[in-house]
Amino acid sequence: MSAMKGATTKTVNVGGTSFAYREVGAVGGIPLVLLHHVTAMLDDWDPAVVDGLAAERHLILVDLRGVGASGGTTPDTFEAMAEDAVAFVEALGLGTVDLLGYSLGGIVAQLIAQTHPGLVRRIVFAATTPAGAKGPASTGAVLQAAAQRAASEGKHPKNFLFFEPTPASQEAADSFLHRLEERTEDRDTPVTDETIAAQLTALASWEQDASPAGLKNLNHPALVVNGDNDAMWPTTGTLELAQALPNAKLAIYPDSGHGAIFQYHDLFVQQTLEFLRG
Amino acid sequence: MSAMKGATTKTVNVGGTSFAYREVGAVGGIPLVLLHHVTAMLDDWDPAVVDGLAAERHLILVDLRGVGASGGTTPDTFEAMAEDAVAFVEALGLGTVDLLGYSLGGIVAQLIAQTHPGLVRRIVFAATTPAGAKGPASTGAVLQAAAQRAASEGKHPKNFLFFEPTPASQEAADSFLHRLEERTEDRDTPVTDETIAAQLTALASWEQDASPAGLKNLNHPALVVNGDNDAMWPTTGTLELAQALPNAKLAIYPDSGHGAIFQYHDLFVQQTLEFLRG
Repeated sequence: MSAMKGATTKTVNVGGTSFAYREVGAVGGIPLVLLHHVTAMLDDWDPAVVDGLAAERHLILVDLRGVGASGGTTPDTFEAMAEDAVAFVEALGLGTVDLLGYSLGGIVAQLIAQTHPGLVRRIVFAATTPAGAKGPASTGAVLQAAAQRAASEGKHPKNFLFFEPTPASQEAADSFLHRLEERTEDRDTPVTDETIAAQLTALASWEQDASPAGLKNLNHPALVVNGDNDAMWPTTGTLELAQALPNAKLAIYPDSGHGAIFQYHDLFVQQTLEFLRG
Repeated sequence: MSAMKGATTKTVNVGGTSFAYREVGAVGGIPLVLLHHVTAMLDDWDPAVVDGLAAERHLILVDLRGVGASGGTTPDTFEAMAEDAVAFVEALGLGTVDLLGYSLGGIVAQLIAQTHPGLVRRIVFAATTPAGAKGPASTGAVLQAAAQRAASEGKHPKNFLFFEPTPASQEAADSFLHRLEERTEDRDTPVTDETIAAQLTALASWEQDASPAGLKNLNHPALVVNGDNDAMWPTTGTLELAQALPNAKLAIYPDSGHGAIFQYHDLFVQQTLEFLRG
């Protein structure tokens, strides 16, 4: 059984609100906190990625406020989400963490690193963009279109959101979706429409933000990863992020999109572990 | 024996000047003309790429004016190089061609497509940039630094110019360099310092050009390929090219640089053949 599949869902009191989380991998060293994408909860993390990273790292997966089994109402700003994430890390009594922020979670990670630089050692930004880049404000429309197409074609929306239409990428999509179903017991609670609406509001503001100026002070070593044809948040934004960060290494995977880290889970795990060994 | 290894070097009279070229793959269909990089001649094309593409396409490799065994003096503008390439294609009596322009050759391909759109059907742009993007003007300095480092470390300059410092990329570099030595008979003539100087002059002008404005009319289907960490001409330029072209598909390969198409020759061949089938 995969470590991800068997991980217990725990809760911690964060300022009066219960946050759901799971720990995977042996405790020790600097933990890697995984920050989820829009619409996602704990079961949306790819077991292949989680197990691969957990072979060498202590991973902490969290549902932010209002997400999945966590209590409270999802805030509609990234500043508030970042404050929640920081409070969660502090509630666990952790002094320093590494971050893996995927998509929306990558924006939360940018805010955490800017407001609490001392809390963070290294950051993996996956399929995410700096403020002002194209993509985030259209997320709601893209989710809708993918849901309709999925219904009419008998597919999962993630087939279209996270993967390319090529045969190789669609095959990877099917494998990924199968892995997400491996865990059958103690599954997390799906997010509510209210949570998604709050996340989409935050994303719309993110794209309208003037510029990623603050990133020039984000000096943490960063690994910036995406697919070469991200249909949700164009890959150009990923490159803008890597360029804006003073200490970033870029990793782009071929024939892949927003879910490139799931399509190339072995390569992503290898590059991330090497980066975190630093 | 590979088709590339056994290809005869031929010449054709182009307005009074002898141009050297080789044909690989069965004649038939629209030929694919390969346009070389700075400092390169016919033997600098990767046999793995050439043989892979020649399995399905009629390839024509050419030394432009003043390069390798071709006569004349290398011009110091891309406009003149493009005119030479067009005259070469016409001298062979070809009506329509596909182009594979690698690095400097990708700039020549941009000019050909803009000045003679009807001559070209589809274009593969590899490791190249639009006018005004960073990289080309520093090529001379980068070549010098790589040559010095190669001498001191007992390596080939292409280890540093075309590949990443990671173990996987350096291993690919060694395989690539080995493949370039497979052909032992009828090898081409190395380029002269005079030719390199003219090419570097053209490259300096290219970076100083105001903008790639003309690309919005380059409507040919294009495949734009590079590594995710091109140390010669930054990968951002590759994305700028893909964005500026109205009909481009992007393909970026991980853990690789300017020589990504050689490092990932199987994937590049597969994606290029699929693109050319179009």
